Amino acid sequence: MASVFGGIEGGGTHSKAVLLSGDGKILAEAVGPCTNHWLIGVDKCIETINDMVQRAKTEAGLNPNTPIYSLGMSLSGGEQKDAIDKVIALMSERFPSLSKHYFITTDAIGAMATASDRGGVVLISGTGSNCKLVHPDGSQIGCGGWGHMMGDEGSAFWTAQLAVKTVFDARDNLVAPPHDITHVRKAMEEYFQVTDLMGMLPHLYTNFKKSFFAGFCKKLAEGAEAGDALCKYVFTQAGRVLAKHVEAVLPAAQESLLNGELGLPILCVGSVWKSWSLLKTGFTEVLDKAASSDKFKGRFHGYSLLMLKQSSALGGASLGAQSLGATLNLDYAANANVFYQHTFNGSQ
Amino acid sequence: MASVFGGIEGGGTHSKAVLLSGDGKILAEAVGPCTNHWLIGVDKCIETINDMVQRAKTEAGLNPNTPIYSLGMSLSGGEQKDAIDKVIALMSERFPSLSKHYFITTDAIGAMATASDRGGVVLISGTGSNCKLVHPDGSQIGCGGWGHMMGDEGSAFWTAQLAVKTVFDARDNLVAPPHDITHVRKAMEEYFQVTDLMGMLPHLYTNFKKSFFAGFCKKLAEGAEAGDALCKYVFTQAGRVLAKHVEAVLPAAQESLLNGELGLPILCVGSVWKSWSLLKTGFTEVLDKAASSDKFKGRFHGYSLLMLKQSSALGGASLGAQSLGATLNLDYAANANVFYQHTFNGSQ
Repeated sequence: MASVFGGIEGGGTHSKAVLLSGDGKILAEAVGPCTNHWLIGVDKCIETINDMVQRAKTEAGLNPNTPIYSLGMSLSGGEQKDAIDKVIALMSERFPSLSKHYFITTDAIGAMATASDRGGVVLISGTGSNCKLVHPDGSQIGCGGWGHMMGDEGSAFWTAQLAVKTVFDARDNLVAPPHDITHVRKAMEEYFQVTDLMGMLPHLYTNFKKSFFAGFCKKLAEGAEAGDALCKYVFTQAGRVLAKHVEAVLPAAQESLLNGELGLPILCVGSVWKSWSLLKTGFTEVLDKAASSDKFKGRFHGYSLLMLKQSSALGGASLGAQSLGATLNLDYAANANVFYQHTFNGSQ
Repeated sequence: MASVFGGIEGGGTHSKAVLLSGDGKILAEAVGPCTNHWLIGVDKCIETINDMVQRAKTEAGLNPNTPIYSLGMSLSGGEQKDAIDKVIALMSERFPSLSKHYFITTDAIGAMATASDRGGVVLISGTGSNCKLVHPDGSQIGCGGWGHMMGDEGSAFWTAQLAVKTVFDARDNLVAPPHDITHVRKAMEEYFQVTDLMGMLPHLYTNFKKSFFAGFCKKLAEGAEAGDALCKYVFTQAGRVLAKHVEAVLPAAQESLLNGELGLPILCVGSVWKSWSLLKTGFTEVLDKAASSDKFKGRFHGYSLLMLKQSSALGGASLGAQSLGATLNLDYAANANVFYQHTFNGSQ
């Protein structure tokens, strides 16, 4: 199967595999659960990936015992060299019929490669969060992406934790809540099936599942849509800190990234962006302020937010092929679209 | 061994067992590692406890196959009823020759029972943190103690994490550090044996050991003693948030706790208190401000900080005996002493 290229989009909650022909046509797809090896361990990670790709082979009418040519994986948690070398070594050993070649990059870089070959900012807010500024030459600078023990600011996990912590702090009289906690406390008791704060401890320790904890964010989005002030507040905070990530990488941006007709292109990846209307107030406020600061005045004219219409498994497959000197032609225009555009007044 | 009473002091890093005779005399002691079941699981927790007590029996010249009368455990993580019922049930089943009766309370309550039967505030800052206000009748109100996923503010873990996070945020350009990070970054690389931030990920996830991570706090204390501004800063922050815990429980304090000659007695438990000189600025600042606020003016005249001279395993043993209607006479005056005393100006 010299002509079949595989791609993986690996998230903290959901994952996806695609198989492509050499001309970029999608042959088959398969979905699976979390493949972040920091969260579930390397064994579970590679088993899930193997399972998805083998299912996709079958769906495409290919022989599961014949390796595909390359598997390019765009993985949440796919950054540390030692760790990804270990993942690849184990895959080759345990699943010899999976793929001939392997390539791993981060979820951010895989997403960018799906949307464009001209660079921009990738801003992930899914189970976790991450931000990368990617130059047209592929060089990059990052902010965040260190996981829930060292940030993950603006992610679903972070937003859920902020809401739960607000309830704990209010109960403890440690920090006064910015808004009434009644709705969030009830939603928490319902989602986590607990009757008091003590009941939360197994969810935080013994039975901790980041993906399940982060899932509470969806309930908060529903609360915000229904008008609850504390739910709205946590999303405003998430929007604010996500924009701070953009501000953090902005000084490194080459002029070409800032001067396009879209302004700075920001590719927004992850399920929290479904709640853009809730993030918007905090997000735009921070970037408005940045644009008018001495540091960025006259340089930062505007920005566009883009969303993928295809899985970043495509970008993973493309980069995997590229690492072997092959080229998969992706239709960038069909893979992403602009959902918000902002030009700063007086900065043109 | 109807007359032998056991006690456990269970911490997130170290633990201790004592055996006492009916007249309160210490027969033997034994030490062991972490016994917080939220951190190491119930099996490891009860094995460690059994091992310590059996060693103490042997040291005291007692038959290890004969159960002691009661084992009173003062445990970090010993709060949630379902969880402690499970710990006791498993202990009885797996170690029938350990003890006839069992009693579990929190590390805070065990510490208080070691120092006094008149109540006060217990403020723990060890691997984790916790605060309880205990009334003379034993009733209590708490703040914190939810572990590192939901606070632990002012603990060794929290202080270590704050320092590490400051390095990450500075590298990411996400938050400007309050002071130069050079010393803390070097100390971090040395303590965790890493050469870059990526190297920290295994310490935060795959190989996470709270106790080891918290141990970095000691290096920060050394840095602060040597004059590093960022090291000093994190301890000032720790002192500040520990005092906030006291302020949080203060509204519930009965007059009798506030009007003694020591002012409010605050029993300080845990190894971070060895760095009192570093915590002091932030700690006293917050309580000075609280004392002069409208809320507490005229009520909160001063406070004393006390430190245990004996293990809180004694208090655990005492409460265990008490739960069976027996009394162990503890020499409270010999078990704790005042190391700092403060009277607010003009509030007398």
